[in-house]
Amino acid sequence: MQYLRLYLLLLCYGIVAEQIEDHANEQPADFQILRFNFRNVQAPYVIALWLVVAALAKIAFNLSRLSHYVPDSALLIVVGILLGLLLHKTQTDLDYYSLDSHTFFLYLLPPIIFDAGYFMPNRALFESIRSVLLFAIIGTIWNTFAIGISLLIMSNYGLFSMSFTTFEIFVFSALISAVDPVAVIAVFEEINVNEFLFINVFGEALFNDGVTVVLYQMFKAFAIIGSDNLTIGDYASGSVSFIVVAVGGAFIGVFFAFITSLVTKYTQGVRILAPVFIFTLPYLAYLTAEMISLSSIIAIAVCGMVMKMYVKGNISHAAANSVKYFTKMVAQSTEIVIFMFLGLSTISSDHHWDTLFVISTLVFCLLYRIIGVVAQCYLLNKFGNGNQSKEFSKVDQFILSYGGLRGAIAFGLAASIPVSIVAKPMFVTTTIAVIYFTVFLQGITIRPLVQLLKIKTKEERIPTMAETVYMKYLDYMMSGVEDIAGQRGTYSFVEE
Amino acid sequence: MQYLRLYLLLLCYGIVAEQIEDHANEQPADFQILRFNFRNVQAPYVIALWLVVAALAKIAFNLSRLSHYVPDSALLIVVGILLGLLLHKTQTDLDYYSLDSHTFFLYLLPPIIFDAGYFMPNRALFESIRSVLLFAIIGTIWNTFAIGISLLIMSNYGLFSMSFTTFEIFVFSALISAVDPVAVIAVFEEINVNEFLFINVFGEALFNDGVTVVLYQMFKAFAIIGSDNLTIGDYASGSVSFIVVAVGGAFIGVFFAFITSLVTKYTQGVRILAPVFIFTLPYLAYLTAEMISLSSIIAIAVCGMVMKMYVKGNISHAAANSVKYFTKMVAQSTEIVIFMFLGLSTISSDHHWDTLFVISTLVFCLLYRIIGVVAQCYLLNKFGNGNQSKEFSKVDQFILSYGGLRGAIAFGLAASIPVSIVAKPMFVTTTIAVIYFTVFLQGITIRPLVQLLKIKTKEERIPTMAETVYMKYLDYMMSGVEDIAGQRGTYSFVEE
Repeated sequence: MQYLRLYLLLLCYGIVAEQIEDHANEQPADFQILRFNFRNVQAPYVIALWLVVAALAKIAFNLSRLSHYVPDSALLIVVGILLGLLLHKTQTDLDYYSLDSHTFFLYLLPPIIFDAGYFMPNRALFESIRSVLLFAIIGTIWNTFAIGISLLIMSNYGLFSMSFTTFEIFVFSALISAVDPVAVIAVFEEINVNEFLFINVFGEALFNDGVTVVLYQMFKAFAIIGSDNLTIGDYASGSVSFIVVAVGGAFIGVFFAFITSLVTKYTQGVRILAPVFIFTLPYLAYLTAEMISLSSIIAIAVCGMVMKMYVKGNISHAAANSVKYFTKMVAQSTEIVIFMFLGLSTISSDHHWDTLFVISTLVFCLLYRIIGVVAQCYLLNKFGNGNQSKEFSKVDQFILSYGGLRGAIAFGLAASIPVSIVAKPMFVTTTIAVIYFTVFLQGITIRPLVQLLKIKTKEERIPTMAETVYMKYLDYMMSGVEDIAGQRGTYSFVEE
Repeated sequence: MQYLRLYLLLLCYGIVAEQIEDHANEQPADFQILRFNFRNVQAPYVIALWLVVAALAKIAFNLSRLSHYVPDSALLIVVGILLGLLLHKTQTDLDYYSLDSHTFFLYLLPPIIFDAGYFMPNRALFESIRSVLLFAIIGTIWNTFAIGISLLIMSNYGLFSMSFTTFEIFVFSALISAVDPVAVIAVFEEINVNEFLFINVFGEALFNDGVTVVLYQMFKAFAIIGSDNLTIGDYASGSVSFIVVAVGGAFIGVFFAFITSLVTKYTQGVRILAPVFIFTLPYLAYLTAEMISLSSIIAIAVCGMVMKMYVKGNISHAAANSVKYFTKMVAQSTEIVIFMFLGLSTISSDHHWDTLFVISTLVFCLLYRIIGVVAQCYLLNKFGNGNQSKEFSKVDQFILSYGGLRGAIAFGLAASIPVSIVAKPMFVTTTIAVIYFTVFLQGITIRPLVQLLKIKTKEERIPTMAETVYMKYLDYMMSGVEDIAGQRGTYSFVEE
């Protein structure tokens, strides 16, 4: 229980630290040796502290038995809720601690998507590209319109406690339709399904972002402009923008991947700096796409996928390993922080609970997901999915339907709905409810279901002795060459 | 020249990106597919872009011949000045691009100092601890008072164009007296002097922070309170605070090092998260010390020094290597950004040039540094420096005097002088002048001088074959154990 005590200690210390008043800007009456000045260091302090708390929570779960039954993401949400309640009790201003959509999209999301792109099994993705794109494009559009129209019809009968316009409900149905890559990674990494299934669910989650961004932004703009002021041209450009946003995002990704490959070629003289480009340039791809309203998720994922083929040859073995390790570490860190913040934001958001609206949304999400998957799999099995050897079995279709998890991206989009849409609190509350349903109910039951349905899991093989020896031989040779060539880190002087 | 073209391309693109107007908050009249919204992504964009530009500049130098004669830090300052002039010409608001002291102390400085602590040769430091502490404490106090009093006397004769009070000039003399660890690393890493000399210069630069913080904060507080309102108690607490600030900082460092060692013990289940603690907890040590006005530099340096003895056993070999690589990479990145920002800030600061004040400060800095070093070395040689085998030779004393480089910390402190001190522009200008003198003149001439004086450089030895084989054998065994134990990164599923 030592870690638990430590955890509580750190927590209390964080809360105490926050409550220390800021005396810095007052005129000092006399000279004090120690002056408390929390405001000055607040921004990095809170982030670093939350990261430590989330990582400690994750470690505590893994030491306990709980993690065998409940996914870490669900447990982290609970920790976030408890923290939120605690901070709420102590009258702390929760605004500093909740997940604003700006932080989420600019800082927390990019590392996870870059990691996904950089470690994407490119070959497996291209083998399933037809089904992935079908699910991502047609599937997402189908879900958005089916859910939106169904909720609109119910609203016209006056069944909900808040009213909304056509475009407003489509803003909501667009954000609630997208399968979330972070949730998919978090849940699927614990159950080890086979690569074919994983690629289909995860590829869809990654590439539906282009569609979601367009639908969400388009309906948001339409809702603000108002249907009376819309012209045929607006509808036309809305339809064109699917292609522009997705292909434009991919183009930016390829462009930055090209620059990264080019620049890392010249880093032989300053080898320690090569990874700087490998991390910074994809991030710039993400921000550039975000800046000109293209799909930033597609941009950074494509950038990671394309550049990994080229940069590995340009950097040293040690650098490549460190890049791999570090990418995983940052992605994992932001993932745990996201789920903890989701719990925290539940406490700090403005809520409006409408039981019928929540249940209807949940039912429509599940129902149309199943209809969409079954219909699309029928087409793919009939006309070929580009991957002759594999067909979508009934069990595959069940996992595809069940794996349509919703997550933090939906919450981020819900949080950035303009306040002029009066039903925003109801949309936010329902989004959180759907995410909880997804992460808790589906996340907890998917492992027993996978075992029950005897789904072929990923082949676990231990490298043969010959392979191991060969890899080690390569390492040995590379580092021998480095020693002889005398190429060392520029800081070698300071090293022990 | 391909990299140069690329460099210019990226530069132009950065400037263009900045000048794009922000249309996001305007009410959209019609639906646009692409909307430019730079303000939204500005903060991370500018940082990432500057990092890329600085890294490209460093790579370009290393491909050219220039880097054989001029230290990279000097060249990066020139790049910063050129960028500043370019941005100034294009009427860009330079405030977004200059180095504010907040960014410098909270984000750029900690990685460098952590790196210094983590890679500190502990044994060599403790062998020279007496001389290091003497230089850091007595040397810094001596320089502060000698420079301050000399300038005050000249001011009383009305020789300077701006007047200042006693406490105000001591604020300036405190910040200009401290040898800068970043400048010392940047210049000394290129000349490879022997470890004994390096440890003495670098150890002083690291540990004089406690003294500098106290003197600077104390005189700043005194200057604001005014000499009429000061009590005996204020002077007394000023004197006590040396011990509190330095020892308190060290205590915080040890405390966080202890927590890091404890926590990393339990990371076996989630090994990918171990480095999160190794980076985050020392940073929290730094911020905690900063928050309660203790020496944050001493805190994070001590934290790095202490924890490295314990954490290495708690984390995997791959994790340890990645931590090492990544620490160096981040430290090197922030170092190049600091020097580029120094150049940039030269353009954006308010200046007041007083030739006599600048020259007097330079002369006093050099003169009192030499007097201080010679006197202290005399004492150390006479009464023993705790390291029987080594005495400070005449040549050592010359390098110690000449290596008293000033750098970005002085600028950061100058930038945070309260505006109520009217001579602030003159202090800022003079600080920049002293830093330039240090980095350019001393930085460029120190290598030829070291060669001329035949100073014993660091022993460069290639590991014997036996050592190499033994190390490789260890690696092999460790990874064999890992393979058999089946402990792998939690993301192994996504891996190719």
